[in-house]
Amino acid sequence: MGEGFGIDHLPYGVFSTRGSAPRVGVRYADTVVDVSTVRPQLDRPALNDFMALGPEAWAETRSDIAGQVEAGALPAFPADEVALHLPFTVGDYVDFYASLHHASNVGRIFRPDQEPLLPNWRHLPVGYHGRGGTVVVSGTPVVRPCGQRKGPHESAPTYGPSRRLDIEAELGFVIGVGSELGSRIGVDELQDHVFGVVGLNDWSARDIQAWEYVPLGPFLGKSFATSVSAWVTPLAALAAARTELPEQDPAPLPYLAGGHALDVDVAVVLDGDVVSRPPYRTMYWSPAQMLAHLTVNGASTRTGDLFASGTISGPEPDTRGSFLELSWGGKEPFAGGRTFLEDGDEVVLRYSAPGTGGGRITLGEVAGRIEPALP
Amino acid sequence: MGEGFGIDHLPYGVFSTRGSAPRVGVRYADTVVDVSTVRPQLDRPALNDFMALGPEAWAETRSDIAGQVEAGALPAFPADEVALHLPFTVGDYVDFYASLHHASNVGRIFRPDQEPLLPNWRHLPVGYHGRGGTVVVSGTPVVRPCGQRKGPHESAPTYGPSRRLDIEAELGFVIGVGSELGSRIGVDELQDHVFGVVGLNDWSARDIQAWEYVPLGPFLGKSFATSVSAWVTPLAALAAARTELPEQDPAPLPYLAGGHALDVDVAVVLDGDVVSRPPYRTMYWSPAQMLAHLTVNGASTRTGDLFASGTISGPEPDTRGSFLELSWGGKEPFAGGRTFLEDGDEVVLRYSAPGTGGGRITLGEVAGRIEPALP
Repeated sequence: MGEGFGIDHLPYGVFSTRGSAPRVGVRYADTVVDVSTVRPQLDRPALNDFMALGPEAWAETRSDIAGQVEAGALPAFPADEVALHLPFTVGDYVDFYASLHHASNVGRIFRPDQEPLLPNWRHLPVGYHGRGGTVVVSGTPVVRPCGQRKGPHESAPTYGPSRRLDIEAELGFVIGVGSELGSRIGVDELQDHVFGVVGLNDWSARDIQAWEYVPLGPFLGKSFATSVSAWVTPLAALAAARTELPEQDPAPLPYLAGGHALDVDVAVVLDGDVVSRPPYRTMYWSPAQMLAHLTVNGASTRTGDLFASGTISGPEPDTRGSFLELSWGGKEPFAGGRTFLEDGDEVVLRYSAPGTGGGRITLGEVAGRIEPALP
Repeated sequence: MGEGFGIDHLPYGVFSTRGSAPRVGVRYADTVVDVSTVRPQLDRPALNDFMALGPEAWAETRSDIAGQVEAGALPAFPADEVALHLPFTVGDYVDFYASLHHASNVGRIFRPDQEPLLPNWRHLPVGYHGRGGTVVVSGTPVVRPCGQRKGPHESAPTYGPSRRLDIEAELGFVIGVGSELGSRIGVDELQDHVFGVVGLNDWSARDIQAWEYVPLGPFLGKSFATSVSAWVTPLAALAAARTELPEQDPAPLPYLAGGHALDVDVAVVLDGDVVSRPPYRTMYWSPAQMLAHLTVNGASTRTGDLFASGTISGPEPDTRGSFLELSWGGKEPFAGGRTFLEDGDEVVLRYSAPGTGGGRITLGEVAGRIEPALP
């Protein structure tokens, strides 16, 4: 289980052992290494104070920790014997819609007779605010949400448990250093603000969403839970995963011109079987473009703000990042007859990328099991 | 200036005097009374710790403070000599769309040939998440935001300052006691969770919003600033303002059946002149219905979460709560030739309601002046 957690990775998380207070650790091989003595800001139940220190402190601390880990100078616990907590206190959570293949698939499924992409899609990274308070750590059970649903042939909505519960396999980006109200973060300034990357599952109740979302966007269809990995991979550990963006046509406006893709492989695992392999490198909009767009109107950002990519879907059917797409709106069952999530299903999102040490690193996984709706 | 701030009101805020730390005070007549010695949770730079104590502590403290204020036992400062701060740390911010007249007007302006209300509108309080991190206190200047705008006759979007900057006159509701993930707040439980009410201006860049909002809703057209009053009126001070809701047709689903309207009068003041008088009592969805809906999917709430009503518009033209409606999409100038906001404009939202003492109370005003876009 320690594969991908070598000295070139060292993701940060918050852990506790029986009877001890939550504090910061790094994952190394099969262990969680207690780094709370390395800096005062690491002896905390959340990464926020450390993330706020900025890129120089991040680099220095990372190098410090690597040295002490290699020297065996820090206490280490077997990874399967510690409890992992939400690694940072979440401020605002923004979810984008940055995959061309995902946006096109959704358009084809819901508006089969029209142009799949809406007119704004190629001009800006479409996004919306989600609920920061319901971001939960990997492993937290997901209770099937209730709400209003109305089928196309029903005359009125009914209340009840969602019948079209879905996943969205995404990557999330965590702000370390915020920005002031009225200022902007340039498209070349990502690394001055983003501390690291998490895996993210934007659980979605498609029937609730379909009925509620006009004209103000998704609300209760998403706000019941968003799961993130317990491990935050520092941006520095993804240096070897930087790659070229796909061609953007039309050319983005100057404030959006820049950024790079990340060569992160994703696997969607349903009840133990890999059902899809979305490739993050195919995303149309880069993380740097998303952040530049988010702040172009002068919106401030804070330590702990989280922005996510939106569903990662590649061009091939077996690289789609949602069950909505994998089952083509529920009409084409996949993986031996599956459409949407059933009670008891467990979904695990796995992520890997080239590491700086020549091999691959394994980003934190995102797991969740569906529990029945409340009576 | 002390009218409406009698002993039956006593709204809470956070203030500081020169060289002193921000702490909680109440507004009484022309003064701000320092209540930081009344409870340890009031000697804080935000109301959150106090709000988290719950309804019994709120009632006891309110009665305590009223006694001490009447006895002149607490330090008081002239209201125009203290600095007022954002009164609470904002968690998640949700904005609803609860006025039938506003939603109908917007429908008529943007889709003149269609049914003005969308099919879901009478079945649920439509809402979306806004940006909690850009909620600012009354008096904070509002810098005209930049972004992408595309007119209907333009072939591509351009980047620049918003040309259709607007207000939305709203009421906001502040959560004191949160609720757990997986639980619901019943429509009869508002008073167990909501601490108080603020005035709120949901500044809106209509041209940015119009281009970006499909399919995921408003984003940068709203996220640059949302202003709230410096004073939070406790729910108890609005007991005499409770009134019947307008008829709801169709009858709401059982989880939404309940709540009451609030008889709060609003005045929109542009550069010193009242240009509209929106009546909150005409709102279709009650605050209790909005909160029950927000949590029906099991979404948790936290101390400091804020939910707002959406634009308050009454049935008559001079009771509309946005310039979009007052100028009918910019086509019918109002107030001597005005359409959208110009640089240097100052907007003040004023609110009043029946008090429990027989007279009226004045809720905290929401003021903001438009500054030119950044170069």
